[in-house]
Amino acid sequence: NFVYRMQTVTLIPGDGIGPEISTAVMKIFEAAKAPIRWEERNVTAIKGPGGKWMIPPDAKESMDRSKIGLKGPLKTPIAAGHPSMNLLLRKTFDLYANVRPCISIEGYKTPYTDVNLVTIRENTEGEYSGIEHVIVDGVVQSIKLITEEASRRIAEYAFEYARNNQRNSVTAVHKANIMRMSDGLFLRKCREVAENYKDIKFTEMYLDTVCLNMVQDPTQFDVLVMPNLYGDILSDLCAGLIGGLGVTPSGNIGANGVAIFESVHGTAPDIAGLDMANPTALLLSAVMMLRHMGLHDHAHKIQMACFDTIRDKKVLTKDLGGNSKCSEFTAEICRRVQDLE
Amino acid sequence: NFVYRMQTVTLIPGDGIGPEISTAVMKIFEAAKAPIRWEERNVTAIKGPGGKWMIPPDAKESMDRSKIGLKGPLKTPIAAGHPSMNLLLRKTFDLYANVRPCISIEGYKTPYTDVNLVTIRENTEGEYSGIEHVIVDGVVQSIKLITEEASRRIAEYAFEYARNNQRNSVTAVHKANIMRMSDGLFLRKCREVAENYKDIKFTEMYLDTVCLNMVQDPTQFDVLVMPNLYGDILSDLCAGLIGGLGVTPSGNIGANGVAIFESVHGTAPDIAGLDMANPTALLLSAVMMLRHMGLHDHAHKIQMACFDTIRDKKVLTKDLGGNSKCSEFTAEICRRVQDLE
Ligand SMILES: CC(C)[C@H](C(=O)O)[C@@H](O)C(=O)O
Ligand SMILES: CC(C)[C@H](C(=O)O)[C@@H](O)C(=O)O
Repeated sequence: NFVYRMQTVTLIPGDGIGPEISTAVMKIFEAAKAPIRWEERNVTAIKGPGGKWMIPPDAKESMDRSKIGLKGPLKTPIAAGHPSMNLLLRKTFDLYANVRPCISIEGYKTPYTDVNLVTIRENTEGEYSGIEHVIVDGVVQSIKLITEEASRRIAEYAFEYARNNQRNSVTAVHKANIMRMSDGLFLRKCREVAENYKDIKFTEMYLDTVCLNMVQDPTQFDVLVMPNLYGDILSDLCAGLIGGLGVTPSGNIGANGVAIFESVHGTAPDIAGLDMANPTALLLSAVMMLRHMGLHDHAHKIQMACFDTIRDKKVLTKDLGGNSKCSEFTAEICRRVQDLE
Repeated sequence: NFVYRMQTVTLIPGDGIGPEISTAVMKIFEAAKAPIRWEERNVTAIKGPGGKWMIPPDAKESMDRSKIGLKGPLKTPIAAGHPSMNLLLRKTFDLYANVRPCISIEGYKTPYTDVNLVTIRENTEGEYSGIEHVIVDGVVQSIKLITEEASRRIAEYAFEYARNNQRNSVTAVHKANIMRMSDGLFLRKCREVAENYKDIKFTEMYLDTVCLNMVQDPTQFDVLVMPNLYGDILSDLCAGLIGGLGVTPSGNIGANGVAIFESVHGTAPDIAGLDMANPTALLLSAVMMLRHMGLHDHAHKIQMACFDTIRDKKVLTKDLGGNSKCSEFTAEICRRVQDLE
């Protein structure tokens, strides 16, 4: 029996149903004997020196040490006047690549089958620059910022991802017919990087065309790489094709192994604390995390147990079409994980 | 027998399959005795005084007189160095509202049924401002411009449209959580205008959420109003739900009755001249045009003949799943139009 070195992961349970689904994941990890030590941290916006919004120092410190985070949903508090904590986390740790695999789940029926694609979103700039001005009364501009460096970095990430995950093609998604300079720069960098990956097919496509083709036949797509906002849109669209945010994992990847994996659904305050939440998205994000950490066996076991449970249809949470509680769904996955030992 | 006053329409046949499908529409209009006199014009980019790109004077003059245009597909010549003629036309005549009804077509199977929605896109500003700069080497910005006036104007158009077309709700689509000032302004104007239309339900939704919900259940949507780029994306997505750009009509509406109706599919150079093209999108755009001109009886008759032909499945072009020629499909619609007399 191989002995795994314990690794620390910073756990940010989040708001609403966050704590319940985090507990579910921890139980399943325990059943799978995943060599993870959880370090739980809360993140709420803190005003730092100079009035800058920051994440609390103990959360920052834990992440700096562990390098790996798992995060439940956080409230997006427009009213609170501070930026989304989700965005602040991506920024704080320079998590430049947002990766969302969208793979049809057997047994969970949607109008689409055989979806098997990955959206890779530039996560640090573009339309999310936060730079906006009032020019004159009633005239506002928002600035979309595209840099050569961030474009090359995300393109390289996408091609590396494709190569390391036995994928065949990368499609750059853009509107360079309209934003000729900014999307043009992004596209040029994708083309340049593509030159170094002759084993991966490279195509480019307008965002509107991708959306149209996506709902007509998503099986034509493989890896898609794109600027920030387009990724926001397309990753949600693709999640919709396979069953929604409740079953879609997500990872935010930075340099030197730093990464935060998160479920991207909401906090569902209406069912918080009622043992009704579906932990699948957070669990599958945690599976992505295990793979990122090199723990492929544990990842495989947990994913299999989760998918078997869904395919079997006997113990499902309400949103998945069943009438079991979160704890029952979790116990079923644990049972199956242990059977796989 | 009521005698209709003849009205002039500027016809821009366009490139590729444009001439064939324009001929098809003219034949069907003739069969329906639609009181339209066509004035055919070509549009190619012309460099005006001061080096500004313009549409040819005789096309401009015709549109200024007729106020109504019908337009086939135009090549988008990035290489030619001038802006898309589609955009230039919208700009030249200040066609501020792009309207695309997406309604499921009986007999034309897609994964969705009962889609019945309209996207209304701000057509003059936003991400299409064309203002871009290189800040320093490798750093580019594109400016998204949102004005109070254009936002109010499109919001008013959307609510008027809803009221005049027996629709119940208007959803404003935005990312004001990210672009707080620009999309915030757009959203605020929508809210203000909504106050004057208490008979229409108003909701607001993030663009990503709309995309996700759209592919899961499009029947929940009615009229959607949004800034330029979001409309570009969402209108194509929605077209995909009902069968693609080959069957989706589009209208660009300005002030004082000025409008250009267009098919938004491509020029399909591979099948141009082969009598294989599907004229449905241009025909349904022409039907929108007839309604815009108050010619509801002719509109109704042509639409019915077109939908009956599709439902009947006997005479269909290749892209619609049949093996008839464009001219045969056209003749079948003409026959049915005449039967409806
Ligand atoms: C919460 C929100 C700020 C965020 C975004 O717009 O990126 C979300 O939609 C996402 O995709 O993670
Ligand atoms: C042709 C292109 C410039 C145009 C756009 O981006 O608006 C097209 O996609 C459309 O939707 O009419």
